[in-house]
Amino acid sequence: MTEFSWPIRVYYEDTDALGMVYYANYLKFLERARTEMLRVAGIELDQLAKKANSIFAVRKITIEYLKPAFFNELLTVNVKISEVRKASILFQQTILNQDNTVICEADVRIACLNNQTMKPALIADQIIAELNA
Amino acid sequence: MTEFSWPIRVYYEDTDALGMVYYANYLKFLERARTEMLRVAGIELDQLAKKANSIFAVRKITIEYLKPAFFNELLTVNVKISEVRKASILFQQTILNQDNTVICEADVRIACLNNQTMKPALIADQIIAELNA
Amino acid sequence: MTEFSWPIRVYYEDTDALGMVYYANYLKFLERARTEMLRVAGIELDQLAKKANSIFAVRKITIEYLKPAFFNELLTVNVKISEVRKASILFQQTILNQDNTVICEADVRIACLNNQTMKPALIADQIIAELNA
Amino acid sequence: MTEFSWPIRVYYEDTDALGMVYYANYLKFLERARTEMLRVAGIELDQLAKKANSIFAVRKITIEYLKPAFFNELLTVNVKISEVRKASILFQQTILNQDNTVICEADVRIACLNNQTMKPALIADQIIAELNA
Repeated sequence: MTEFSWPIRVYYEDTDALGMVYYANYLKFLERARTEMLRVAGIELDQLAKKANSIFAVRKITIEYLKPAFFNELLTVNVKISEVRKASILFQQTILNQDNTVICEADVRIACLNNQTMKPALIADQIIAELNA
Repeated sequence: MTEFSWPIRVYYEDTDALGMVYYANYLKFLERARTEMLRVAGIELDQLAKKANSIFAVRKITIEYLKPAFFNELLTVNVKISEVRKASILFQQTILNQDNTVICEADVRIACLNNQTMKPALIADQIIAELNA
Repeated sequence: MTEFSWPIRVYYEDTDALGMVYYANYLKFLERARTEMLRVAGIELDQLAKKANSIFAVRKITIEYLKPAFFNELLTVNVKISEVRKASILFQQTILNQDNTVICEADVRIACLNNQTMKPALIADQIIAELNA
Repeated sequence: MTEFSWPIRVYYEDTDALGMVYYANYLKFLERARTEMLRVAGIELDQLAKKANSIFAVRKITIEYLKPAFFNELLTVNVKISEVRKASILFQQTILNQDNTVICEADVRIACLNNQTMKPALIADQIIAELNA
């Protein structure tokens, strides 16, 4: 599975006094979709930490805010895995509103880290296979 | 030290689309003031966890929202320790706006827990002494 | 409809360095469930603000934290409307974890406000009827 | 004033169950420093919205996470205005920890919008002068 979509409802908690979704909160939406994509691929992040001492940490993100999102909208967060390396994954993500307009685009580089040393770690072959399946 | 005040500036992150501070975010303000009060009393929560395996967890909170707070306001968060028991502390807190109006009142019961077992734990005598000093 | 349940998945955004859901974030979970309950009852909060100039603001909350919740858990948030007055509603809420253990109990008093004056306002008869239906 | 620094204390609210500051929360830290820089330059964002109908919205951000930050650390957020255009501003920002290690680097493009139309708007000459002063 290399592409995935996840619905996100906008609640008051996500918005700010300018009436729109607060810019940091899009990063939560993007991560929820990545987490659910991994779950569908059979990868539970809590198990990965417990059994393999591996965590996925964001190394770099480039995000463009194209249109605002508002309270009560039902957004769609798309995830595409564009590159799987030995110790990192590149996700390309978009967020669409109910009019099917792209309101946000993001490139997210995730690094695999050992959760004891916080140093870069190899992604297990089985995980790589599941991500490329 | 049994009373303490801490200033909090309201940023966009704290507000919601109704134009006011979002109700859950007051709990962050209340905790920042408690953390800073403990710091002034010589109690650093990260050291407490590392050295004594003790964490302070909120057990119960009653909070009344009396007036809204708005973006850019400089609030004052007051903390008063009203009771120190062997394994818990009761804080009475208020938040005031720049007009010196009380906008929020809260009673916060904190329990001391062992951070390995998550079971109730005794507060160290030294900590109790510092809280009552 | 006077009772309602809503599932909430715990993401990293919801947790803190103590390894548990951060105490303020339960208030977000509680509100999501209330918002979804109102939606099922035919009440969309953005329409209510636009058409009736009415907003629902939390006036008081009492919340007990009984057990911690952890990353990746699928929680259930229950909502029960226990009282509908002319200008306020009392919700009784519980949060359960996957073992069906009650981890959190809350009483939430919501006031209806005029969104221009921020003063208390009567809840429209139709809304009261829908809440009592 | 084209350079500015602002201290940020890390509270539990900022961290996640991996024990570090949650990646979206750095965007809050970055914005607090920009807001305080503008305040020192005489620009209050609430007045700007009320009097000039202008808001500053993030249009694009590129952020690199170099090192983790932990609970209780006192971080320093640096802001440098690297470009002022007619309708946008480019900020270069870094976050340093107590060891003076750069833990985060960000380029933040802000657009000036009319808060009624949400369309791009010219930044007032006086604001541009203050930013370049």
